[in-house]
Amino acid sequence: MSEWELLARIAAEVPRAGDDCAVIPFRGTNLLLTIDVLHRSADFPAGTDFYTMGWRAVAVTLSDIAAMGGEPLGVELALSAPDLDEPFTGVLRGAKDCARAAGTELVGGDLDVSTELFLISSGLGEAERPVLRSGARPGERLYLTGPLGRTYLSLKLFSRGRLAKANELFRFIPRIGEGHSLSGAATSMVDLSDSLAHSLHILSRASGIGLVVEAERIPLLPGLSWEEFEGVFYFGEDYELLFTAPAGALPPGPWAEIGEVIGEVGVWLKRYGQLEKVPDRGWEHGKRSGLGMGA
Amino acid sequence: MSEWELLARIAAEVPRAGDDCAVIPFRGTNLLLTIDVLHRSADFPAGTDFYTMGWRAVAVTLSDIAAMGGEPLGVELALSAPDLDEPFTGVLRGAKDCARAAGTELVGGDLDVSTELFLISSGLGEAERPVLRSGARPGERLYLTGPLGRTYLSLKLFSRGRLAKANELFRFIPRIGEGHSLSGAATSMVDLSDSLAHSLHILSRASGIGLVVEAERIPLLPGLSWEEFEGVFYFGEDYELLFTAPAGALPPGPWAEIGEVIGEVGVWLKRYGQLEKVPDRGWEHGKRSGLGMGA
Repeated sequence: MSEWELLARIAAEVPRAGDDCAVIPFRGTNLLLTIDVLHRSADFPAGTDFYTMGWRAVAVTLSDIAAMGGEPLGVELALSAPDLDEPFTGVLRGAKDCARAAGTELVGGDLDVSTELFLISSGLGEAERPVLRSGARPGERLYLTGPLGRTYLSLKLFSRGRLAKANELFRFIPRIGEGHSLSGAATSMVDLSDSLAHSLHILSRASGIGLVVEAERIPLLPGLSWEEFEGVFYFGEDYELLFTAPAGALPPGPWAEIGEVIGEVGVWLKRYGQLEKVPDRGWEHGKRSGLGMGA
Repeated sequence: MSEWELLARIAAEVPRAGDDCAVIPFRGTNLLLTIDVLHRSADFPAGTDFYTMGWRAVAVTLSDIAAMGGEPLGVELALSAPDLDEPFTGVLRGAKDCARAAGTELVGGDLDVSTELFLISSGLGEAERPVLRSGARPGERLYLTGPLGRTYLSLKLFSRGRLAKANELFRFIPRIGEGHSLSGAATSMVDLSDSLAHSLHILSRASGIGLVVEAERIPLLPGLSWEEFEGVFYFGEDYELLFTAPAGALPPGPWAEIGEVIGEVGVWLKRYGQLEKVPDRGWEHGKRSGLGMGA
């Protein structure tokens, strides 16, 4: 089975799975629960410092809560490593600082000894009206919360040994405030934990709609050239939010409109006046080429 | 730093950590959050089937909720393995069945590819009056929810190739009902995820009291001889609950009274009419002898 088939089986057998977080109705609101596994060989390039690892491990889980329009209530982080002593202080500090930057708190975790460094985070959040992946409707507009390329740039800098700047870029701030402010207007939402291309497919499949993206409208970070567009688009691992909403429905914010929702299921990229079909590649764990990082 | 020193630093820097679950006040009650890492080389003896792995991974996290007197709201399970296909079906079925047996539901998870099989579970629960580790007072009595030796027996059977019975014993049922029924009476509680000896030290330190246990009153499963007492006591990894309460305060139940709470901090075992000091050994990850299993 491919990972995609495994995910389809999970969706069939675990009804609450299949979105960024599980949604658990509780006392007139909804609790959000999510878990994310990162490990050194797949998720942290050589030169990533322990502070950045702890930060990013917490950030990816908080990003899942942001992608539901939720507010975090707490996050836990488990550390498994050959020698706990070495990463401990940096990881703990990074995890705490990221949680604080996102308006929440590191509340606990677990310690374990193993042959490779693993960081596993679990986030708890709340959303009265969680934004699912499945609510997009034809005629709506497609948006991003911000420019792409942060992880791409960071990996380039790691490979060139510019570690301070690379680590800084790798420590993204989860879009909690943005996601929450969109929860009344967005009809569907997902984060870009793999890539924009893959997240477009996620929304398309979950909502049963099509998405047409205009390449020229996708904002890229300064320092990226259009020659690098493919890398960012297919292997980006950025943690901006991708969402849909009716035209004119959004609150004020830094939203970039990048395309539209259509009736036919699928994903298309419009560039140089041409419409090309976007394949859903670059996202299967262990099968990646290119940047090859997973989260 | 030893793991004990690391835990002390976590307790100092992460105020909500240091109990079986983090406690998060929410809408007039408390949410409980916990995370547990298991991996093949440390936690699953040769012969453990995938169904049992999935079951046990969920059970250890639900046991943490039980140990706070809580009721589970949902559990997530992340699977990381060299080949996801092989363990997938068994692990998923075991996880779902364990959650159901404990009155809750598997709500989500994560998939990841790595060189060793890891199962990481995160549990969410609720407790209006969570039972902490810190509430024991001198003069109270000390109890267990049931007999010890289940994991010890199971590991013996694994080593002898009696796999069906070994797997069955390894799939313990978390003591959710027992823990919840004790939440009004117990003054402190913890599960035995490492061993009875270590859990006694946990309560002693957290409550600032001493515990005197009578060896002859510790119930052992049928099939275990007293020659095996040391193994069970120091390396048991059973998931019964250890708790304190004033004499005569308990609701009806299968509780075994095994000793008493005294003022002087420490742990003592009374056997053959002698009082011996109990060392806190056998619990550090990666440093274990004996059964050498960690959870």
